[in-house]
Amino acid sequence: MSEKVYKKIKVTGCSTASYEKAIETAVHKAAESLRGLSWFEVTELRGGIGAEGAIEFQATLDVAFKVD
Amino acid sequence: MSEKVYKKIKVTGCSTASYEKAIETAVHKAAESLRGLSWFEVTELRGGIGAEGAIEFQATLDVAFKVD
Amino acid sequence: MSEKVYKKIKVTGCSTASYEKAIETAVHKAAESLRGLSWFEVTELRGGIGAEGAIEFQATLDVAFKVD
Amino acid sequence: MSEKVYKKIKVTGCSTASYEKAIETAVHKAAESLRGLSWFEVTELRGGIGAEGAIEFQATLDVAFKVD
Amino acid sequence: MSEKVYKKIKVTGCSTASYEKAIETAVHKAAESLRGLSWFEVTELRGGIGAEGAIEFQATLDVAFKVD
Amino acid sequence: MSEKVYKKIKVTGCSTASYEKAIETAVHKAAESLRGLSWFEVTELRGGIGAEGAIEFQATLDVAFKVD
Amino acid sequence: MSEKVYKKIKVTGCSTASYEKAIETAVHKAAESLRGLSWFEVTELRGGIGAEGAIEFQATLDVAFKVD
Amino acid sequence: MSEKVYKKIKVTGCSTASYEKAIETAVHKAAESLRGLSWFEVTELRGGIGAEGAIEFQATLDVAFKVD
Amino acid sequence: MSEKVYKKIKVTGCSTASYEKAIETAVHKAAESLRGLSWFEVTELRGGIGAEGAIEFQATLDVAFKVD
Amino acid sequence: MSEKVYKKIKVTGCSTASYEKAIETAVHKAAESLRGLSWFEVTELRGGIGAEGAIEFQATLDVAFKVD
Amino acid sequence: MSEKVYKKIKVTGCSTASYEKAIETAVHKAAESLRGLSWFEVTELRGGIGAEGAIEFQATLDVAFKVD
Amino acid sequence: MSEKVYKKIKVTGCSTASYEKAIETAVHKAAESLRGLSWFEVTELRGGIGAEGAIEFQATLDVAFKVD
Repeated sequence: MSEKVYKKIKVTGCSTASYEKAIETAVHKAAESLRGLSWFEVTELRGGIGAEGAIEFQATLDVAFKVD
Repeated sequence: MSEKVYKKIKVTGCSTASYEKAIETAVHKAAESLRGLSWFEVTELRGGIGAEGAIEFQATLDVAFKVD
Repeated sequence: MSEKVYKKIKVTGCSTASYEKAIETAVHKAAESLRGLSWFEVTELRGGIGAEGAIEFQATLDVAFKVD
Repeated sequence: MSEKVYKKIKVTGCSTASYEKAIETAVHKAAESLRGLSWFEVTELRGGIGAEGAIEFQATLDVAFKVD
Repeated sequence: MSEKVYKKIKVTGCSTASYEKAIETAVHKAAESLRGLSWFEVTELRGGIGAEGAIEFQATLDVAFKVD
Repeated sequence: MSEKVYKKIKVTGCSTASYEKAIETAVHKAAESLRGLSWFEVTELRGGIGAEGAIEFQATLDVAFKVD
Repeated sequence: MSEKVYKKIKVTGCSTASYEKAIETAVHKAAESLRGLSWFEVTELRGGIGAEGAIEFQATLDVAFKVD
Repeated sequence: MSEKVYKKIKVTGCSTASYEKAIETAVHKAAESLRGLSWFEVTELRGGIGAEGAIEFQATLDVAFKVD
Repeated sequence: MSEKVYKKIKVTGCSTASYEKAIETAVHKAAESLRGLSWFEVTELRGGIGAEGAIEFQATLDVAFKVD
Repeated sequence: MSEKVYKKIKVTGCSTASYEKAIETAVHKAAESLRGLSWFEVTELRGGIGAEGAIEFQATLDVAFKVD
Repeated sequence: MSEKVYKKIKVTGCSTASYEKAIETAVHKAAESLRGLSWFEVTELRGGIGAEGAIEFQATLDVAFKVD
Repeated sequence: MSEKVYKKIKVTGCSTASYEKAIETAVHKAAESLRGLSWFEVTELRGGIGAEGAIEFQATLDVAFKVD
């Protein structure tokens, strides 16, 4: 009865606004092809620095979803 | 004279807005029962994903306070 | 001749009985859609605590299978 | 509304039977003085070896409970 | 505009020659079924030792590719 | 031709607003004396707690720049 | 019979003399309010640097005590 | 008087039954050639997956024994 | 007499040939501006994947040199 | 107003007396060329063993200083 | 029947040619006194830098062998 | 010519005086049965707390020695 199984995929989202927006971008992209997304774990925070000092925030997540 | 002692407690704050708001929620809750809060260390960033794709940001902190 | 390639997926199994049962549940679920499962590595042990103190053991694994 | 706060305490349970029993012992002891236990994370597995080779399994957990 | 998303898969490549060859084998196998491979991170280096002392180098990678 | 070299420096930025602002402060300070900033990796998130509960977000980064 | 439970608290002790003195300060402070202290694990060594180059050694410990 | 010295060896035990049985197998094998075994630390949990889905639990331990 | 001091810098070298070549490139670049290079520690192995599957090996090192 | 920036350098100090002396040696050497040293974090403790069993204690630190 | 036990020893091999050669040197040296070598895990990659910039690659391994 | 091999053993030394004394105790005990001790790495610092608050410092080391 309690023998649930979850699978986790690793995704990296990017945003020039914030890490929260980068995470939302990654989660919503994952939701396009997967059902039952349940939680995520942030495994890395990085960023790119553009020629004019513009910053791109990059968050890497393990996203978990329930497997039927 | 310099023999100060700090104690650390581990708390997790949640917010649908941002990790900063989740941290503030956790710190302010800790401040309700403890005096002398000094600093915190983020030990984990996770999140929940709701049925409609809504995200809850969850930050876990070690919060340090001075012991008299 | 020796240039084998393995792919690893990350899965979390749950069981109210034991971590071994949680692992078996995860491995057997993975075996439903993948062939050539070879080994696994336990990357996290957690658990849920129910209202009456019931415990659900949760094991997260990297499961490796051979890619043809 | 979503601004929940959890606190985590670190406990070590011991059992000559299994890690699952050691965990249950630790969780049930924590439940004697705390309400709202929600989940735990295993942070260390060790053991003692007695004079006659008897083994005591020792599991250390971060146990989370909701703060009102 | 900057809201790119990458997915990462974990693969292990093997070679009797070198870790570089093991990595190339893993990357090229991944390229057979995925487009847009961008970078990889080495997460583990191991090896097998044959009966006559022959060594098989095994490199595990997180390989990232862009998700459209 | 491909034999590029990058150097990384470790900097901590502070902001009462957010981690993103703390990061931008650190990156822009680094850009005052270094050319060719390319990317950064967040290695630690901490914070200070003021007497009135005000929070200062502190982000530590490894910032990479190309060496000519 | 063997089902002992220990709780661990995290404390930071400071001393201008040595890490051993910082640890003793932390352990003795903990002993003022807790009985049955059994062992500790050093989880972090840091220090402060004063205006004149004076050093304050700071040791963070998980201190374990038996729960009756 | 208190200047005890312990040595630690790293062993991996295997069992188709459970991690506890794998640990006992490793400890008892170590006890065949060493005296004064005192404690162990689990450093890795892995497993093998047989052709028919049979699982072999593999636990790696640092086993400590007192040196006279 | 024994009170030597070393400083470490973090550098990333790149090579399409091998990690050893990437390391040599980084060490030799560091030697252009620093004297007394003594040892290095590999802290990360990554790589870039070009459009045609070409691989660039990237090694990050902490390089230590003696401070007079 | 709160947007301070700190830079960290990694140094290794050596002493035949103690780790505290090794740390002081490293911090005082850093203070010869840098102003505003604020704190340090111990990242590694090692040692050398001389031909006659003499021990040299080696402490590696990240030393932080304020950037104006 | 499946209750195999492996022991692991930690060795460091050195080579001026490559990490693969350093590993082979360490494994072959271990094979001189041990039978049943099965696999190894790379736990650290370092190197020495000679006066003229010559590099010595140093690989540390946990080498496992079957215990009868 | 440069193909040296070192072996490392893991030992824990204890002292009521200091970690340096605990390390010396462990290194000198190792020197009773091994030749060519070269360096050590501190992998863990712990301690015991006696009934009257007396502290025993415990340092665990990987001690390396040259293999002929």
